[in-house]
Amino acid sequence: MCRWAAYRGEPLYLEELVSSPAHSLIEQSHCATRAKTATNGDGFGVAWYGERPEPGLYRDILPAWSDCNLRSIARQVRSPLFLAHVRAATGGGTRRDNCHPFVHGVWSFMHNGQIADFEHLRRPLETMLDNDLYNSRTGSTDSELLFLLALQFGLERDPLGAMAETIAFVERLAAHLERRVLVRFTAAFSDGRQLYAVRYATDFAAPTLYAAPMGETGGYCLVSEPLNDEVEAWVEIPDGSAVVLGENGVDVRIFSPAGRPAGGMEAKLALVR
Amino acid sequence: MCRWAAYRGEPLYLEELVSSPAHSLIEQSHCATRAKTATNGDGFGVAWYGERPEPGLYRDILPAWSDCNLRSIARQVRSPLFLAHVRAATGGGTRRDNCHPFVHGVWSFMHNGQIADFEHLRRPLETMLDNDLYNSRTGSTDSELLFLLALQFGLERDPLGAMAETIAFVERLAAHLERRVLVRFTAAFSDGRQLYAVRYATDFAAPTLYAAPMGETGGYCLVSEPLNDEVEAWVEIPDGSAVVLGENGVDVRIFSPAGRPAGGMEAKLALVR
Amino acid sequence: MCRWAAYRGEPLYLEELVSSPAHSLIEQSHCATRAKTATNGDGFGVAWYGERPEPGLYRDILPAWSDCNLRSIARQVRSPLFLAHVRAATGGGTRRDNCHPFVHGVWSFMHNGQIADFEHLRRPLETMLDNDLYNSRTGSTDSELLFLLALQFGLERDPLGAMAETIAFVERLAAHLERRVLVRFTAAFSDGRQLYAVRYATDFAAPTLYAAPMGETGGYCLVSEPLNDEVEAWVEIPDGSAVVLGENGVDVRIFSPAGRPAGGMEAKLALVR
Amino acid sequence: MCRWAAYRGEPLYLEELVSSPAHSLIEQSHCATRAKTATNGDGFGVAWYGERPEPGLYRDILPAWSDCNLRSIARQVRSPLFLAHVRAATGGGTRRDNCHPFVHGVWSFMHNGQIADFEHLRRPLETMLDNDLYNSRTGSTDSELLFLLALQFGLERDPLGAMAETIAFVERLAAHLERRVLVRFTAAFSDGRQLYAVRYATDFAAPTLYAAPMGETGGYCLVSEPLNDEVEAWVEIPDGSAVVLGENGVDVRIFSPAGRPAGGMEAKLALVR
Repeated sequence: MCRWAAYRGEPLYLEELVSSPAHSLIEQSHCATRAKTATNGDGFGVAWYGERPEPGLYRDILPAWSDCNLRSIARQVRSPLFLAHVRAATGGGTRRDNCHPFVHGVWSFMHNGQIADFEHLRRPLETMLDNDLYNSRTGSTDSELLFLLALQFGLERDPLGAMAETIAFVERLAAHLERRVLVRFTAAFSDGRQLYAVRYATDFAAPTLYAAPMGETGGYCLVSEPLNDEVEAWVEIPDGSAVVLGENGVDVRIFSPAGRPAGGMEAKLALVR
Repeated sequence: MCRWAAYRGEPLYLEELVSSPAHSLIEQSHCATRAKTATNGDGFGVAWYGERPEPGLYRDILPAWSDCNLRSIARQVRSPLFLAHVRAATGGGTRRDNCHPFVHGVWSFMHNGQIADFEHLRRPLETMLDNDLYNSRTGSTDSELLFLLALQFGLERDPLGAMAETIAFVERLAAHLERRVLVRFTAAFSDGRQLYAVRYATDFAAPTLYAAPMGETGGYCLVSEPLNDEVEAWVEIPDGSAVVLGENGVDVRIFSPAGRPAGGMEAKLALVR
Repeated sequence: MCRWAAYRGEPLYLEELVSSPAHSLIEQSHCATRAKTATNGDGFGVAWYGERPEPGLYRDILPAWSDCNLRSIARQVRSPLFLAHVRAATGGGTRRDNCHPFVHGVWSFMHNGQIADFEHLRRPLETMLDNDLYNSRTGSTDSELLFLLALQFGLERDPLGAMAETIAFVERLAAHLERRVLVRFTAAFSDGRQLYAVRYATDFAAPTLYAAPMGETGGYCLVSEPLNDEVEAWVEIPDGSAVVLGENGVDVRIFSPAGRPAGGMEAKLALVR
Repeated sequence: MCRWAAYRGEPLYLEELVSSPAHSLIEQSHCATRAKTATNGDGFGVAWYGERPEPGLYRDILPAWSDCNLRSIARQVRSPLFLAHVRAATGGGTRRDNCHPFVHGVWSFMHNGQIADFEHLRRPLETMLDNDLYNSRTGSTDSELLFLLALQFGLERDPLGAMAETIAFVERLAAHLERRVLVRFTAAFSDGRQLYAVRYATDFAAPTLYAAPMGETGGYCLVSEPLNDEVEAWVEIPDGSAVVLGENGVDVRIFSPAGRPAGGMEAKLALVR
């Protein structure tokens, strides 16, 4: 289980999420309270949008808590849209190419979750990729592969549709190969204009996702775990939902890959305040 | 609070302490159960004696749990005397020069503990070093400095006497400068022939130290925390003690720096089974 | 262009090749004289056989000249059979998984050379691998892939035959896909008992390979570039040759992948003293 | 011999110096043409001023040519005043704390050069530092120590005077201790408002320093070696000079530490066009 935080709004110093809050991402890397894995010491990364369409990317394999470069960059860089991640490896060695966020053109992506039996699904999933996307795979994680599959399935055209199709495809493939059908997926991704987040799990046990307003002028923050103890400030996003932060503010929608029986999810959603 | 393990006896693969046991040092780096700090992710090191008088040394700044080199070396190298350490930084940045063990000539040293108000004592302590020892200081930790001071005070001639004098000197200096007088010190060191360990604290609250026989033929293991759950196999070494593992087996002695009132320690020792 | 050195014979300290000679591998990493690329600063590695069937492996991404761990390990470890490599990246990022030697079970492999148009051949070549070998690929270099293909094609049964078949397969595939047909390949590999080296190029322009006796009792050293200036000590192995160092000493054979017109090679070999 | 580049003017992407030009700093790290040491592979760093008074700092120990983070940051960050450096170690291990630029409060500093017999001068020079500056020393290079001494001698009040006093002090100390009196010093430093550079050597053999206008609106670039082959664009700054880039443009002055006989320098300067 990894931890992540993302922001969209007026330009904000990265440190406002990464290092300053009581439960900043760096703090969480050392001692997460809601996460299954106590330590997220297997690398970190931050992707931020600035004056260019493509995001800047800084990733390294040290624990976030001991990286002086991260603190300096987070203190210096202001951005209207950024993603930050600390990693607890579940698969894929500790190396930069396996650290989130992943970037492809203008798109960035980061993830907390897992695919069951991934070692058996990896090769047929990689087979789905066009040569260009296949060659751009530099790591070995399930997360990077989900991102590349979403690009394959039309992330540019229909971000949430492509992501739903990606997850449905993984679920169908696992069923077809008679493997465990289980995707847990709490992710954020962006094209530099809108910030998307999804919370979904085949078994309704997706990692947590919270939202809170941030800053003076309508900014929002999406996190895997609240950054401070102001309980009422953080709204939990229910399983089976997608959040879109854009020019028109916050939009929460049902996120329903074809692979999951819709009935179950709707029943679940009905329980949410 | 760091964790460490040391061995002297018939040649043993390093992995017998580093990666194989239930609570191996690598396992402890991720989740220590008796240590104050849950994570020892700020680097690691191993020093082993082989065919040369000087030990081999492998240290790095990654968490021990994610270093494939450490696993391979620990699996391949057999040694009759070695020290292994995982670090939770209390001071001094995360860099190789601050990782234990420290090596100087044939001597190796590793430490779990602290000096109170070290930032105020560091400079006058460094002033005590001869030019050669001063120039050989490459890191910034209190641990390396204690090692160099012990070398200055005669570690080659009288290992335990020099170590006691080092600690007493630190305590006296702190008192003289009207700083907190507090040294907590659980350390192991060796010249390649004997293996020494000390457990001592000014306030009788030294980090733990355990000993257990290991292997078929009279080998012994000294650890900051037991490597498995066989409770009866591990003997706790009391505060204010030194252990010497040599050709004549195990020798446990009182360790009494001049700086600590002897009465208190003897009273404490009387309580130990 | 990388540089490498390998040894088989009486146990020898790794430093005898890695750091001690006038043109040691570390020295060559900083300033190679025969290599196309002046600097081999993109990582290094050493694989050595000891008491276990599988080799030990130490690889890292720093330049070899600045890695204190490498110097200490090379000074401490003695082995009857080892491979050492310094890398100048031609493709594949600078990360441990892309550093040579590569190890699979008891086998080790390292390489100096290239496959033309590899970015277009990579995917169909990876398709040839069984699931097990496919999943064991952790890097992105052509070198690792050549090693895995050789394992696929029977390296355990017939080492030189499998290696020839691998190269021929790459050449045929390139021709079939109407890409440049060019493999340059100077490699060493071992199962811990015999040490093999091959020098071959489709265009008769393979990187150099030299052999020299080493030590008192019949040991041999194979290198991409001589380790000292004693010119008469080093025998250049001609293009289109394989060397086998085993219990019966040195054996040099013609190495002729099906893909290269045999006539050209024999003509070339006829010119060799 | 290291290489460096610094800029002051309209905000410029760091890549304009670091990675884009024909002889960019990254290119120079691999193959410097005027430098004594062909390879500058012992780490790199960049310090840039943004919206805060203190600069951002990114340093790492990989060769600059293989660090993907550096390329991304250089492509993303724009700054009106920045310093960038690639290192060829002459003393002090390869670690982040020994990479330039060094930063203290609002000040940044980077250096190409050396102090003769530094191992004998280091300790008495460190003795000159106040406790605060002594404790802020985290590396072991002569360069960092020159920076801290300049801070000690009044860098905030009189930047060029303090730097001259620092060099004169080193020269006098070396003479007093009967060591070689030799400082070679081509450095850049800044408080975020003005950019200073100095070229000086006791023996009139200082590393090179060049200046060129950059950008549309009066920006200037100072480099240890030209960034492209437009010979006429680069003005060589003579030995014994200081350059100040500020709001009023470029100012070149004589830089004359008390320790060097003024006559020699003036004679030399008279030769400069």
